[in-house]
Amino acid sequence: MTRIIFDRADRYIDPQNDTNILDAAKRMGIGISAVCGGKGLCGKCRVVVKTGREKLGPLSNLERLSLSDLEIISGYRLACLATPVAEGEIFVKIPPESSIEQQRLQVAGIETIVRVSPTVTKHVIEVPPPRAQESKSDAERLIAACSTLSGTREVKLGLNALTLVPTTLRRSGSITVTLYENSDTSEVTWIEETGNSDLTLGLAVDVGTTKLAAYLLNLQSGKTIAVASSLNPQISFGDDVISRISYTSRDAKNLRQLQGIVVAAINKLIHDLCDQTAIEASQISDVAVVGNTAMHHLLLGINPKSLGLSPYRPSVTSKVIVSSKEIGIRVNPGAYVYAFPIIGGFVGGDAVANILATQLHKLSAPALLIDIGTNTEVVLNDGSRLTSCSCASGPALEGGCIEHGMRAETGAIERVYIDPESREPGYTTIGGAPARGICGSGILDAVACMLKTGIVDSGGRIATTLSTPRIRVRNRIAEYVLAEAKDTAGGINITVTQKDVQSVQLAKAAIFAATSILMKQQGINSADLQQIFLAGAFGTYIDPQSALIVGLYPDIPLDRIRFVGNSAGSGARIALISREARSEAEQIAGNTEYVELAANRGFQDEFMRSLYLPHKNPEIFPTVRQILSRSRSY
Amino acid sequence: MTRIIFDRADRYIDPQNDTNILDAAKRMGIGISAVCGGKGLCGKCRVVVKTGREKLGPLSNLERLSLSDLEIISGYRLACLATPVAEGEIFVKIPPESSIEQQRLQVAGIETIVRVSPTVTKHVIEVPPPRAQESKSDAERLIAACSTLSGTREVKLGLNALTLVPTTLRRSGSITVTLYENSDTSEVTWIEETGNSDLTLGLAVDVGTTKLAAYLLNLQSGKTIAVASSLNPQISFGDDVISRISYTSRDAKNLRQLQGIVVAAINKLIHDLCDQTAIEASQISDVAVVGNTAMHHLLLGINPKSLGLSPYRPSVTSKVIVSSKEIGIRVNPGAYVYAFPIIGGFVGGDAVANILATQLHKLSAPALLIDIGTNTEVVLNDGSRLTSCSCASGPALEGGCIEHGMRAETGAIERVYIDPESREPGYTTIGGAPARGICGSGILDAVACMLKTGIVDSGGRIATTLSTPRIRVRNRIAEYVLAEAKDTAGGINITVTQKDVQSVQLAKAAIFAATSILMKQQGINSADLQQIFLAGAFGTYIDPQSALIVGLYPDIPLDRIRFVGNSAGSGARIALISREARSEAEQIAGNTEYVELAANRGFQDEFMRSLYLPHKNPEIFPTVRQILSRSRSY
Repeated sequence: MTRIIFDRADRYIDPQNDTNILDAAKRMGIGISAVCGGKGLCGKCRVVVKTGREKLGPLSNLERLSLSDLEIISGYRLACLATPVAEGEIFVKIPPESSIEQQRLQVAGIETIVRVSPTVTKHVIEVPPPRAQESKSDAERLIAACSTLSGTREVKLGLNALTLVPTTLRRSGSITVTLYENSDTSEVTWIEETGNSDLTLGLAVDVGTTKLAAYLLNLQSGKTIAVASSLNPQISFGDDVISRISYTSRDAKNLRQLQGIVVAAINKLIHDLCDQTAIEASQISDVAVVGNTAMHHLLLGINPKSLGLSPYRPSVTSKVIVSSKEIGIRVNPGAYVYAFPIIGGFVGGDAVANILATQLHKLSAPALLIDIGTNTEVVLNDGSRLTSCSCASGPALEGGCIEHGMRAETGAIERVYIDPESREPGYTTIGGAPARGICGSGILDAVACMLKTGIVDSGGRIATTLSTPRIRVRNRIAEYVLAEAKDTAGGINITVTQKDVQSVQLAKAAIFAATSILMKQQGINSADLQQIFLAGAFGTYIDPQSALIVGLYPDIPLDRIRFVGNSAGSGARIALISREARSEAEQIAGNTEYVELAANRGFQDEFMRSLYLPHKNPEIFPTVRQILSRSRSY
Repeated sequence: MTRIIFDRADRYIDPQNDTNILDAAKRMGIGISAVCGGKGLCGKCRVVVKTGREKLGPLSNLERLSLSDLEIISGYRLACLATPVAEGEIFVKIPPESSIEQQRLQVAGIETIVRVSPTVTKHVIEVPPPRAQESKSDAERLIAACSTLSGTREVKLGLNALTLVPTTLRRSGSITVTLYENSDTSEVTWIEETGNSDLTLGLAVDVGTTKLAAYLLNLQSGKTIAVASSLNPQISFGDDVISRISYTSRDAKNLRQLQGIVVAAINKLIHDLCDQTAIEASQISDVAVVGNTAMHHLLLGINPKSLGLSPYRPSVTSKVIVSSKEIGIRVNPGAYVYAFPIIGGFVGGDAVANILATQLHKLSAPALLIDIGTNTEVVLNDGSRLTSCSCASGPALEGGCIEHGMRAETGAIERVYIDPESREPGYTTIGGAPARGICGSGILDAVACMLKTGIVDSGGRIATTLSTPRIRVRNRIAEYVLAEAKDTAGGINITVTQKDVQSVQLAKAAIFAATSILMKQQGINSADLQQIFLAGAFGTYIDPQSALIVGLYPDIPLDRIRFVGNSAGSGARIALISREARSEAEQIAGNTEYVELAANRGFQDEFMRSLYLPHKNPEIFPTVRQILSRSRSY
C-alpha cells in the first residue's frame, strides 16, 4: 500500500500499487495538465517527486526524451508514467506549469507575507456631549476626540466627514471614524455611527491594456474577500497602447472618453464585488491602482502623448494621490486613490507592483522578472541593483494577430503536442469544448512542437517538403493543420500559418533581446540567474519548456522559473494593506534604472539574432539543443 | 467770490456768495440727501464745515433744532441753510449719512489698507527641456523648476495641473504656474503657457441671507475690478435662516437643493463678472467666502440643524478649505474655496470678516460693531477683548413684514420728514419714482419723525386723538398716512400702521438689548464707546439720527458712528489678497467670546425695556431727550 501525498496536502492511498501519479491526482480531483491523454507523449504532466523516488518504477525512455538532465536529477517525472512499485510514502509536488487549477485563476498573483498596516483604518471614539459653558463646535469636539489617534500630528476633517457631523454626532456618543494617514497628512475621511459598518474595506485595481482585475480586501485582516475581472473596454479603441495614445492625441475629448469608459468599467467591477459580498460600495474606504504607464495616464486623465514621442517619457512618474470622486470611482466619497509610481517609459506602476509582490528588489542573487503582455516589461536584479526596460512584444503571445488566434477563452487550444514520428497533433482546449481557435499558450506550444519535430527550422520556415498531409500551402502561405474542420466548433481547419510562426518569432525576439540587453549591460550570464519570475496572465498558462524551446527567456533550469500570475494585482493588494509597502514602492520606482531600448544601439542587432528559434547562436541554449537533438533523433 | 471745496475734491466757485451749500453741491452733481426739498425742515442735509465756518451766515433756529450741541460744536450745518457771506475758501465734508451716492453703493464696504500677499500667486518658470540621459518625467522637471518658489517646502502638483503637463510642457520652455500656499501646503494648482493669461484673479463672495455679493479682484494689485450682486434664491424657502434650517431638517435632499441653488446663483454672478470684464471663469484662481453660520453650512452642504436646537452650536467653527469643484463653484478647476471661520452660534464668518475689515480687534478704546440684517450680530471691543452675540432682529429694518414695506428698490420711500406743526409728511423715494412702498430706512425715519412730532408716544402707540386727517383707524388698527393714494404708484394710500411701529420696536429692542448685554457684561457705558461701526446694506442707508431717536444703538455723538456698508464683503476681499489676514481671521474667530443670549437671564428684561422709544429709561438717551423736548416744543 502506497500513499501519494500531493503538495496541497491531499493524499491518495494506492492499495494495489498500480495507479500512476496522474490517475491518482485525477481521483483526488487535482488537475494536472496532460494533453496527450496520459500516453507519455506530450510531456506536460511533469511533477517533482520530493521524497520516495525509489518507490516508483524506473524512468522510461519517453520521460528521458521529455525531461532535461537537470530535471531528472531534480526528481522530475511524467505523472502518467510514474507508477508506485513499492509500499511507503511518496511526496509529490505539482509545479505551477503542470497545474490546471493555477492556470485558471487568472487574477491570482503570488501571495507575499506582509505586515498588515493599512493607510486607512477605522477607530471607535467617544465624543463627549457638548457642555453648556463650552463653545466648541461638534467638529472641534470630534477632532479633539481624534487627537490621540495620530500621535502629535493634527488630524484634519475632510469635507465629506464634515457634512456628516450634524447627523452623526448628535445621535450617539460613540462614533466610528475612518482615518487616512500617510507621510503628509492625517485626515478623517468619513464618520458613521458605531456598529453601522465594522468592516474596513479596500479595493485594489490592476488596469491592464487588455484586462481589468479588481480585488476587494478586508484591510484589518489583509485578506482578499472577492475578485472580479473584465476586459478593458478601451480595447475598442485599439488593442495596443500605441493606438490608444494616437487616438487620444487626436482630440482632447477622446482622452475624456477613454478615461470615462475605463472608470465606468471599474465601477462595474465594484458593483460585481459588492454583489458577491453583499456590501455597499460606500463601505470601500481606500483604493490602490496599478497599470502600465499608458493605462495609468488614461485613468487619471493625463494625456499619454509624450509616451508616443521621443524621448518617450511619462508625464509623471511619482505616485499620484487623488480623491476617488475626482476621477469618478464610486466608492466611499471620502476615499483616496493611490496610483503607483512609475519607473520610466512604459515601465509603469505594474512593474513596480510586480517587484513589490515578488520581492525581486530584496534578492541578493541575480534574478529576472518578465511581465509578458502586448507590452512586455523586463526587470533585472543583477544582485545589487535593478534595471528595467520595456518592449513591444505584440499580441501574438496572447493569441492576437494570429490567423486562428483567440483569447484564452472556452474552446481555445491551449496545449499542443505533435507526435515526433507521425507529425500528427494532439491538443486540449479550455473547458474541453470543440476547438474554436488557438490562444497564446497554444501557439507557443505549437511552434515549440513544430520546431522539435522539424516542421519548422531554426529560421521559422515551415518545411513544405515534409510528407504529411498536415502541412500544406494555401494562398501561397505554408501552414500546419492543427485541428481538422470536422473536429472544430466552426467547421473550418484551425492552422498555424507561416505568418503565425513569424509573429511568435517577433514577439519572443523582442522579449529575449530586451532581456539580453539588460543582462549584457549589467554583465550577467544565463548561468548567473537564480530565478526568473514570469508574470502576466499569459505567463501563468504557458508551458515553460515550450517557452524555453522557442527562446523566450534565457536557458536556465526550469525549476528556477516561477509563474507569479498577476503579480501586479498582488502588488496593488500589498500597497493597500501596508503603508510601508507604499514607501517601498516609491523607493523601487526611484531606484530602478530605466533603459530606453529605442536609444540602445545593440537592441536591433540582438533582436535580429533572437528571431531564430531558439537563437542565431544556439550555444547559449544548451538545454534546447539537447531537447531538439533528442527529439529529432526519435 | 467764494470757493466751496467738497471732500471729493470738487470745487464750486460762487461769484455772488448767494448760493447755499446744497445748491452748490447740486450744481456740481454731488448728491446730498434733502427730503424736505431744501426748506431746512427734514435735517437730512447735514454737512460738516471743516474750515471757513466764519465765511457762512450764522446758525439758524431750524439748524439749532436739527443738530445736537456736540454736532454744532463739531461744525455741522444743514447744507440748505448754510450760505456763504464772505469771500474765501470753505472746505465741506459730506458725512456718509448725507451722501446719496454712498447709499446707492450697496456692495461697497470700507477699504482697509492691506499689504498684498495673496494665497494664490502666478510665477513664470523655465522648465529645461528633457535631456536624453535623464529619466525625469515632465512632472518631476516641473516640480524641480518650482522648487525655488516655496522655500524649503516640497511643492506638490495637483491633479488638474498634472493633467495639463502633457499639453503645456512640451510647447514652450516658459510656463506660468499658479501656486497655492498656506501654512499646510504648497501646491501648483494650474499651469499654462506664459502669456496666455497674465492676470491673477480671485473671487470674494458674501453669502447673505437675503443677498449675494461677488467681487472680482486682481490678486497682484489687490484691487477690486468688478462687482455683482443678486438676491439669495434660498429666499423662496424662507426669508429668515430659521425657516431654511427647518426646511433642510425635514429631508436630506432639501439640503442638497438649497446648496445647489445658492451655488448656481454664485455661478451666475461669476458669469456676470466675466461678462463685465471679458475674462474667463477659468482665470479665477482663488475664492474666499463669508456668510453667517447658517449660510456657511448650507453652502458647504453641512446640515445646519444643530443651529436650530439647544445649545445652538455650529457643526464646525474652524476655517474650511475645499476644492471649488467639490462644491460646484465654476472657476478654475484647481482653485480652492476658503470659507471663513466662525465665532459661535449664528455669529459666523461674516462677523469675523466685519472685524477684519474694520480692524475692530486692534482698537484700544471701546467700540461696537453692529451688522444689521434679519439676524443682527453685535461685537464689542471693551478695549482689550472681543465679545459677540447674535439676535433675531427680524426683517422690519429691511422693509420686511411691514404693511407697505418693500426692499430698497426704485419707488421705495427712503427718507421721511414730518412737519412738527402741521404733522404733514414729506418724503423722497429711491430713483425719485412715485412711491410704491416703504423700505427699511424709510420706516425708521417715519417712526423717528412720528415720535418727534408726538404722533406716537414712547410706548409706540399712535395718538389717534390728534387732530390730523393723516391719522386714522382702519380695521381697528391705527395708522399714519405717509403718501396719499393720488401720489402713489399703486394708487393706494401708503401708511405706517400701529403694527409697523411695533415691528420697528421689536427689531430695535432686540438689537439694543443684545448690545446692552455685551456692554453690561464687559462693564462698558455709552460714554466709553469711541466708535460704533454700522455694517450691513441697511446700515448704509439709514439716517443715524433717526436710528438714535428710536433707540437702535447707544446714545453717542453721531460723528462716532461709522457706516461701513458691506464690510463682510470687504473682509472677504482682504482675506483674498492677504495670507496674513487669513491667519488673523482665524485668530479673531478663536479669540472672540460668543455670548449665547438664549441662555442669558438679563436679555429678556433688557429687551422689554428696550421696546420703549427710545428706552424705558430715557436717561440713557440724553441726546434723544434733548431732541424730543426741542421738537415737541416747536
